[in-house]
This record gives sequence, C-alpha cells and structure tokens, in this order.
Amino acid sequence: MMLYSVSDFKDPDFRMQLSETVNSLLALRVIPVFNENDAISTRKAPYEDSSGIFWDNDSLAALLAMELKADLLILLSDVEGLYSGPPSEPQSKIIHTYVKEKHHGEITFGDKSRVGRGGMTAKVKAAIYSASAGTPVVITSGFATDSITKVLKGERVGTLFHQDASLWALPNEVSAREMAVSARECSRRLQSVSSEERKKILLDIADALEANEKLIRTENESDIAAAQQAGIEKSLISRLTLKPGKISSLAKSIRVLANMVDPIGQILKRTELADGLILEKTSCPLGVLLIVFESRPDALVQIASLAVRSGNGLLLKGGKEAMRSNAILHKVICGAIPSTVGDKLIGLVTSRDEIPDLLKLDDVIDLVIPRGSNKLVSQIKASTKIPVLGHADGICHVYIDRSADMDMAKRIVLDAKTDYPAACNAVETLLIHKDLLKTEGLNDILLELKTEGVALYGGPRASDELGIPKAKSLHHEYNSMACTLEIVDDVHTAIDHIHRYGSAHTDCIVAEDLKVADIFLHQVDSAAVFHNASTRFCDGARFGLGAEVGISTSRIHARGPVGVEGLLTTRWILRGSGQVVNGDQGVVYTHNNLPL
Amino acid sequence: MMLYSVSDFKDPDFRMQLSETVNSLLALRVIPVFNENDAISTRKAPYEDSSGIFWDNDSLAALLAMELKADLLILLSDVEGLYSGPPSEPQSKIIHTYVKEKHHGEITFGDKSRVGRGGMTAKVKAAIYSASAGTPVVITSGFATDSITKVLKGERVGTLFHQDASLWALPNEVSAREMAVSARECSRRLQSVSSEERKKILLDIADALEANEKLIRTENESDIAAAQQAGIEKSLISRLTLKPGKISSLAKSIRVLANMVDPIGQILKRTELADGLILEKTSCPLGVLLIVFESRPDALVQIASLAVRSGNGLLLKGGKEAMRSNAILHKVICGAIPSTVGDKLIGLVTSRDEIPDLLKLDDVIDLVIPRGSNKLVSQIKASTKIPVLGHADGICHVYIDRSADMDMAKRIVLDAKTDYPAACNAVETLLIHKDLLKTEGLNDILLELKTEGVALYGGPRASDELGIPKAKSLHHEYNSMACTLEIVDDVHTAIDHIHRYGSAHTDCIVAEDLKVADIFLHQVDSAAVFHNASTRFCDGARFGLGAEVGISTSRIHARGPVGVEGLLTTRWILRGSGQVVNGDQGVVYTHNNLPL
Repeated sequence: MMLYSVSDFKDPDFRMQLSETVNSLLALRVIPVFNENDAISTRKAPYEDSSGIFWDNDSLAALLAMELKADLLILLSDVEGLYSGPPSEPQSKIIHTYVKEKHHGEITFGDKSRVGRGGMTAKVKAAIYSASAGTPVVITSGFATDSITKVLKGERVGTLFHQDASLWALPNEVSAREMAVSARECSRRLQSVSSEERKKILLDIADALEANEKLIRTENESDIAAAQQAGIEKSLISRLTLKPGKISSLAKSIRVLANMVDPIGQILKRTELADGLILEKTSCPLGVLLIVFESRPDALVQIASLAVRSGNGLLLKGGKEAMRSNAILHKVICGAIPSTVGDKLIGLVTSRDEIPDLLKLDDVIDLVIPRGSNKLVSQIKASTKIPVLGHADGICHVYIDRSADMDMAKRIVLDAKTDYPAACNAVETLLIHKDLLKTEGLNDILLELKTEGVALYGGPRASDELGIPKAKSLHHEYNSMACTLEIVDDVHTAIDHIHRYGSAHTDCIVAEDLKVADIFLHQVDSAAVFHNASTRFCDGARFGLGAEVGISTSRIHARGPVGVEGLLTTRWILRGSGQVVNGDQGVVYTHNNLPL
Repeated sequence: MMLYSVSDFKDPDFRMQLSETVNSLLALRVIPVFNENDAISTRKAPYEDSSGIFWDNDSLAALLAMELKADLLILLSDVEGLYSGPPSEPQSKIIHTYVKEKHHGEITFGDKSRVGRGGMTAKVKAAIYSASAGTPVVITSGFATDSITKVLKGERVGTLFHQDASLWALPNEVSAREMAVSARECSRRLQSVSSEERKKILLDIADALEANEKLIRTENESDIAAAQQAGIEKSLISRLTLKPGKISSLAKSIRVLANMVDPIGQILKRTELADGLILEKTSCPLGVLLIVFESRPDALVQIASLAVRSGNGLLLKGGKEAMRSNAILHKVICGAIPSTVGDKLIGLVTSRDEIPDLLKLDDVIDLVIPRGSNKLVSQIKASTKIPVLGHADGICHVYIDRSADMDMAKRIVLDAKTDYPAACNAVETLLIHKDLLKTEGLNDILLELKTEGVALYGGPRASDELGIPKAKSLHHEYNSMACTLEIVDDVHTAIDHIHRYGSAHTDCIVAEDLKVADIFLHQVDSAAVFHNASTRFCDGARFGLGAEVGISTSRIHARGPVGVEGLLTTRWILRGSGQVVNGDQGVVYTHNNLPL
C-alpha cells in the first residue's frame, strides 16, 4: 500500500496533470473480488439484472468492473484459459483471443464434473458481457502465481476478450513468437543440409533478386511515392530508395558470400582428452536473430544473406515507409529457400507485434541487431534483455601528440572528420598536446578545418586558449561538419579524457614517438585503437571481414567491426569409445592439442 | 484499475494464499492525498493531535499512512529531495538517507519565499514522524514524472526517512557503483603493468594465502560455529567449511594459473590491410565482473585469481553465512595487490546494496557470474540486463540407439547418472530406441540402475511399456539418484525430444552406427554433444581448459565449459603511417593474412 501527497502544488491544473501522470504510471488499483460464502446467487438484488447473468462471483466481478470502468478484469481459473476442447486432450488448443463470431459454435464449454472447470461457462458469459461493455477480460490460470504479472506485462497468456477482437483477428495471423520458433526449426534444418546446398541457396537468392528486379523496383517506387505524399524528409526518402544498379550490386555481394569458406562446422580446436577420446570445438549458428532496421530496404537483403551464410534463423522488423519494398524482397528471398529448409527461416514481422513486444522474446531470440539511427540503437539497448549487437554512440577521438608529424596529423584529422561526417567512425573530438599550442602546424590544421567548413567548439581549456565557442558537452557526437577541441598535458591525460568522455568505439593517436604510441595503443580501452591512421578505417569491409553485420561497442561476444563470425557460436563435440569419468579414475587425461 | 476474481477456488486456505500472492506480486494500493481547498489546518479535529503537527496535507498524508500502516509514503516536492543547504547553491548536496542524529543540526530547512520550497520544514517533520512510527517516507520531485516508479524500483532518488536509518548509515559506506568504477580503473592499471608483474601478483596471492592460513581458518571456524548455532542445514555447512589442505590446494592452483601463458595481449589475428597498414586483433580483459556466490568461500579465491590472471576488475557478493571467511580472504588477497595496480581491483560488497541493486549496474559491470544453486542462476538471469555466464538447468540426455553396444551403454548410463548425481552434467533423461524394448541388454541396464538405487520414472510411452511410475515432467532436473526414461522411434525423434525438453547443456548418443551418431552430433543443438562417452566429461578441467569459470548454456560469448578465455574480449589495433580513407581511394587494400 502506498500514498502520495501533492500538496506542494497550488495550481489545480498541475495537480490534475500530476495525478493523471501518476495514475498512468502505476496504471492500477487492485481489488480482489470474492465472496466468502459464495452466496451471491441467493442475494439477488442488487446484483441480478434483467439479463439474469449475475448469478456468481464471475458475474459480480464483471458487474463491478463495468461499474468502476476498470481497464481490465482478470478472471482466474484452474485451467490456462479457454480451450478449443477439453483441456486434458492434447489436440485441444488454448484460444488466445476470443472472437465471438469464430469461436462461439466450436467450443464446448462443458460443465464437467471436475471441480472448478464447471465455472468456465459462467466465466465466458461474464467475459463476453464485460468486454462488450468496454472492459476487456483475460481468463487465465490462478495456479501459476506469475500469470497476473504476465498479463500486466502484455504477455500472451490465457484468453483475451475484447470488444474489438473481431477486428484484430486476422484469419491466419502468426505471432512473432511462433515465427521465432519456426525460424529456429528451419535454421536447424539449414545446418543439417550440406555445405554445397547452403551455397546454392545463396546463389539462388542472388539470381531471384536479379530476375525480379523490375517487380522490386515497382514496389520500391510505390513506397517512395507514398513517402513523398506523406511529406517525409528528403534524407529518409533517399535512404528508402533502391538506386539503379543496387539490386545487381546486392546480388554480386551475395555471390561473394556464397563463395566464401563455409563458416559453419569449422573446427576451431581439437584436443585429445584421453586415449581415444577426442574433443572438437566447432562453429555453429547462434540461432535466431532479430533485425530491426529503419527505412533502408537493402539492409534486409544484406542481413538475410548473412543469416543464410551463417545458418541462422531471422526475424525482420522494418520501417513502415519501406513496407512494400520489404514485403517483395522478403517474398523473393524466401522463394529461393528450398522446402528441405523451409521458407519460415526468415520471418517478416508484419503483425501488430511492435518492437517493445519483440524485444521481450528473450527466450526465443538470441541476438538483436539494430540497423539505423543511434537513437534506435539506444532505445533497443535500454529495453531488452536480449544481447544487442551494435553501438549507440561513436564518439571517436584523434590525439595529436607533441611528437606528431603535423602534416600527417592534418591529413588524418581532415579525413577522419570530413570523409563522411555522419559515419560512426568519424572523429568528434580532437585532443591536442599542450606544447602544440600556437605552433604553425596546429594553426594550419585548424585553418584547414575551418576552410573545409568544420565548426570548431572547445573544451574548457581549448575555448580559452584558442578563443573558440565552448562545446556544450565533451561527450557529444556531432555526426556533422563540427568538432570539439581540447588541450591535454600528455598522452596520459589524453587517455583519461578518452576513458571519461568517449564511447569506446575508435580512438587514434598521431605520434612519431613509438613509446608514446605504444602507451596509447595498450591503454586505451576501446574496440579499435589506431596509430597514425584515420579513424574511418574502422569498418568491416576495410578490415577485410567481408560483409559487415555492424560495429559493436559491447565487450561481450563481438567487439568492433563484426562480420559473419559475430553470428556464430561454438559447440563442443566429444567422440569416445565408451569412456566414463568414474571419479576421474576412468581415463588417464592427456590433453594433447591436435592439429586442425 | 483492475479487479480479479478467485471464485474458482473453493478452498478458503488456497484463496487466502492466492490473495497474498497477488498482493505481494503487485505490492501496491495507491491513494492520492490532497485536499482541494487546503483547509485542513482549519478543520482541526480529527486531524490535529496533541503533538500539534497535523496542520497541512503532508501531515495528513503521514497520519493516513500511519493509520493505514502503509508500506511507504512518498511526499512529492518541487525539489529533488532534502538538501544539505539551499538547493540552488552548487555545494549543496542531496541527502539520500536522513539520519536525525547526523543531519538535524546541519540542515537549514529555511522557509524561503519561493513557492513550494516553503513546505520543506513541514515535510521533514511529517516524514520524521511517520518514519519513527514505522512507515518509511521518501521525499522526491513531483516534476520528474518517473520519480515514483524509480522509488518503487528501489532506485536511490530523493531523501529516504526510515526508523532504522541511523543503524544503516556507515560513516564511509562505498556504493557498489563506486566500487565498480574503481575496479575498472585498477583493471586498466593491471593491464598496463608487465606480464611478469601480473604473474608476480598471482604468486604473491598464493604465498599470502598460505602465510595467513591460521587466520583464515579461525575466521572460517567462526562462520561455521555461527551457522551451526543458527541451525543451518548440514550440506550448507559442509560447503561453507574450508577443509584441511584446502588453502594449500587453492595456493597450488593459483601458482598453476600464474605460470600459464599470459592470456592478455595475445595476437589472435594479424592482417595487412594495405601497404604499411597492419591490423591486429588482440585479447584483452572484459572489464568488471560481478561474482555472486553462495556459501563456498573457496569460490572467492578461485574467481579472484582468475580475474587477476585475465586482468579484470571484480566485485564479489558472497553469502551471509561466509561473511567472516570472505572478509579475511578478500583482505589477504587484496594485501598482495601492489599499489601500482590498486587494491580496489577486487571489491567485496558488504554494504546494504543487495543483489537486485547490483544487477541494475549494467553500465559499470560487464559480466555476472553466479556460483551457486540453479535457483540462484535462474533468479539472476531473470532479473538483469548484464550478460550472465552460467546455466540455470542441466537436463542432460543419453540416447541409446538400436545400434548401441549395450555393455558400453550400461557403463555410460551408470557413470552419467551415479558418478555425481547432483552435478549439472549428470544425466536426467534416458532415451531408448523402441527396438531395444524387452531386450536383455535394456533389462540389464534398468536392473543395474535400480540396484544402484536410481528411481526410474517414465515418459508417456515408457511408463506404459515398462510399467514404471509416470514422470511429472519431461523437462526436469532431479539432481539426485532418479532418472526419467522415454522410448523414441529413432535418432530423429530423440533429437526432437532433446530440443523440446532439454536445456541445451550436454547430450550423448550411444551408437555403433556412425551415420546415426553423425546425425546426432551435427543436429543436437546443445553446448556439448557426445558420442559414446559419459556426459560427466563436460567440465573445464576434464576438457583441459585449466580453471573453470563455469559452464555456459548461453549462445552468446562463451558456450559450454568456460576457462579464462571467457573472461576476455578483443581489441583491434591498427598501426599505420598516415593512411587515410578518402572515399576508399586513399589506399589500395591488400587484406593479406600475416603470420602470428
């Protein structure tokens, strides 16, 4: 029980607003409804109405819920919910959403003799009545003590009654959970086909994309036209557009993937544990990936082909703007997947499951890969327990040491900032050794930056010393032609600055003094640390990893630019001839590393 | 607003139990307290009591809270909470826990003219009064709309008043967050010292443990005595006990760790990206680990030495029973860490931060390793966004194929079940090919299991065919001398059964038909898959990994038995001579793999 007081606020409007906020935050008042002697049916007034349905506690609960205009009524039963037949029979399935038109005829409520089940008819009647009056009802199990919290979390337990249910219930709607389970099954089949067959699937996908280019472009143009009509901003429309040649370049890169060494089933380590007992550590797919991507439909193709290459199942959740493009790309790709694997390997989430719902499926999804804005990545990282592969921030630094070749520093800084300012690996903060202040070399770099159109902001020291405007924060990603400058005493304070304000993405030192460079390379705790090279090199293709899944600033699983290997895990395979442990007396351990 | 009905349950005891469960799950009834005309002070009765403090809504709220025996009263203010001075002055700090003895003198409540702040004196009075009567109070901001949910989540917002506050407030209490930040700083220093120095730290820890053996044993005996006095069960006391020889065996294994190849800074991959541009993928520590362990104090030593070996910072949260043992072990270990690294590398959490609070620190802790019961692991996995290394269930299967050598099958099954039934890699379910029914070989295995004292339960088919009691669930870990049996049609149905009911830990096939074995080895999607060898081999030491961190059933980062490598991540180091990307025209990519 909890109380709150709002007496500090004299303004009645603000009070009202605050109360509403609090109520919406907490969303609940909980009232248990039951009657000790179960004698409701004998006390007809005031509970019985003309419809005659208020004869029991379920009806009473429904009446109260309606009178109080409750947001939700939960009826706890001794079974999981309403079934399509007797719950004990295996072919009976739980009905997750009750649709009167659909279910009324086919369900036998059956007032069986078993205690408790007899009440289901009353429950369904009460639920239909309450739902039609505007208070939705969930019938769920009272034995599973977490079922109420599950209902409150919006999980799909029990049977929901809602006045709009008939509008929702698409005839063959498949939930994201079911899609994930199917994707895992197909992924297991994909692993069990031969390496040649997996290669062929990729080649078939490439061919299918080219064969259907016209159709794909038509659908993409419809998306573009709709986006233009909706007044969506230009940069977004540009990302939405599949430019001429894009389909064939996508097909080309899929063929490159098809021809790479099969990453699945690679033996990474082989050890003889004891005589005749051989252990192998082998690569295998992660399982099911969820890709959330914003407008770019080409991301769908890239990720789908990486998933096939790595043997993973896939759920795709794309932006609404690219709806038609995504649908046709998904259809074309799935059409190339043979029935031995199953086209449910790749699911396109088009149901009403929204991103927050998908992110709750941590029992059936193994990895989330967001492709889009930093904001998207941050939101996803903040709202899921599923591991996320990606990075929210790319606050990259270049530190110019006292020993730097200043011409080289100029080249690197300009490339790092201006080659593609919106990229995550563009430099955001320039750290300058204090001895470089007022040198010609530094002045030249600053002049060149300004000439190129880069707006300069200073940290506390630099804004004083260089007479430039103060940066609002030292932990800031401009993603544009702007840059923060700060003066540091030496490589150690540069490292401290990076640890304090950076995002552990990519940081660079420009120095001729190799001792100083080594300190930087070994102590900066970022995914990528560079000496005398532009931060822009931090990229899967430039690193030679082939297709890039993303750049990870996570410290777990994969870090920095991630290729196909980030979509793999390992499995230990042990082959013996009847060996037993027997208190470690069963075998004589040798632990010999064997050649691969 | 929500209602629930429990009318299905006729048993009054169960109703009561259910209501309590629901209440504890939801834990709340929310009552907003305010009075439209603020005229409480004019309606003296019944609100004013002899102490004269009930003159405003805050006092009314406190009175109501006390009368209703509320669990918590939240007073919303227009400032963040109670400050040590005027909130507008930068040196004023928020007081998170009000301690009358400590704070009463130093705080100027100041009935300043600014609207709203004037009420702080009344709030503090009401809060002190309510807290002393048993209802804790939090004063927090009403403007931050999420502050109520934060309070309910136990976050440290606003100012808490609690009758026991003076007992909690240790003079120099360090929060777990501060400990984690310090541990990361020390871990960075540990990485930057030489490999020889890291080795020396481990040797010094081993020496210090042996030198302090007497002291450690004394403290351990105090813990044991206290546990015995508290009537704690025998098996727990046995785990708590550091048996004779344990300290020296721990020291010995630390010396083995010290002498292994330094796992930090290993170059895992070296690529020439372009002329003079060399990329290395190197190993480095994960960062900060949180180890939650139940009674075993030896786990503290093992994990601490693994953390030092892998260069990680560490937070330790041990069980209360082992309080004194943990404290002395922590002191001895930290005493051996030189000041160049800092003894805050390893923090022992003794503050009132509880496990749920620690698990929220996902921004400063990189990995959680639970060491204890399956229940502990499950709870931790369910309640944190920090990656967890471990496994909740170990439901291991042995499938006996039609082609099995039945003598071998008997040896393997008996070892897998009886070598150590409480281990996670013990077999829980035996799957039997249908053609083996009523064969002498199978009868012999079942007889031998019964003779050894293993209770046998059957799945639907096995209980019928073999006339044994039905297993309650096919997804069940006995952890004891009991086993589920089920009949399957062939290797494919065995695999389906394992995917459906298993926990992806360790599964084994006994078969002479190598084709069938290969299907099993390649299709069973578990961390470890064995052919003709006991499931008990799934173990870090037996796999030759050296010290074991744990066995992971996660598919991300590390899987199966995990050694030091599970505590490492990678870093990309790029060395150049001024190369820039320049729209990928800056260099000619070569992507040559170089020898390590």
